[in-house]
Amino acid sequence: MEKIELKPIGTIHTPFKQSEGTPIQPVKGKGTRGWIEVDDTYVDGLKDLDGFERIWVLFWCDRISHYKLHIKPYMDTQIRGLFSTRSPSRPNPIGISCVKLLSVEGNRLEIEDVDMLDGTLLLDIKPYVAKFDTFDVQRSGWTDAVGKDAQTNANNRFFSEENK
Amino acid sequence: MEKIELKPIGTIHTPFKQSEGTPIQPVKGKGTRGWIEVDDTYVDGLKDLDGFERIWVLFWCDRISHYKLHIKPYMDTQIRGLFSTRSPSRPNPIGISCVKLLSVEGNRLEIEDVDMLDGTLLLDIKPYVAKFDTFDVQRSGWTDAVGKDAQTNANNRFFSEENK
Repeated sequence: MEKIELKPIGTIHTPFKQSEGTPIQPVKGKGTRGWIEVDDTYVDGLKDLDGFERIWVLFWCDRISHYKLHIKPYMDTQIRGLFSTRSPSRPNPIGISCVKLLSVEGNRLEIEDVDMLDGTLLLDIKPYVAKFDTFDVQRSGWTDAVGKDAQTNANNRFFSEENK
Repeated sequence: MEKIELKPIGTIHTPFKQSEGTPIQPVKGKGTRGWIEVDDTYVDGLKDLDGFERIWVLFWCDRISHYKLHIKPYMDTQIRGLFSTRSPSRPNPIGISCVKLLSVEGNRLEIEDVDMLDGTLLLDIKPYVAKFDTFDVQRSGWTDAVGKDAQTNANNRFFSEENK
């Protein structure tokens, strides 16, 4: 199949300099602040965004190691199929995180509930629209059995820091 | 900034051969079935996915036209900033759709609530995890004011069919 080329449109700044200790999802990073620096070229596209309470941030997980199709997720003790997990190490390591949007000033977005590494490359921003993005599901697979004591922060298992 | 290369991992099949009439979101395509053909290389990674009621499908909007930073969304009558909309025409035209997963057999996933064009390239599959993906928001920006009579299917405004 053909190859596709992406171009980062900005950079995400967070307090997390390494994978060790980084929350594995925005709900696990609740209250942690960061900010997005949007490249000047794209600033005009941010109009009206400030009306939204949350935004989808799409980003490139640039520091992950090579992916494996069978992995043990952070929250689990069993080996699972990669696509049934939210591991950052994937064939196309695109992260999607729904973060709280605090403010938009020029090319700077203050955000909360961050779960990305500092310096992560921004690919896209989409508004979180309640009527589009809320789904009432009864089954969330193996994650339904995960207890409250499950690991909620990353270690370096899926990352190779030297690839930075 | 550096460029990033993606590699499609499969193809999404839907009844929608052209943008005209295609639902603008999975909630608008409710009940419409399609299927995902995952490349054989990645089939092992589908293990355990069948336990999930819904999945996030990330895909490449290959037939869109050049993006503009100010656009009039399908559901609205006013010009909005691109990143405050879910328009498929974006600097990095990556779509995220949360579809219902009906079955997984080999490399074939039967899905429901599709809103992609037939033949759309698959980039990633992630499980929809209720405790990760459900957010209680009070504000969804300009979309809060959109009435029930708003347009819910696409026309060819953001697409250039000849680019296929």
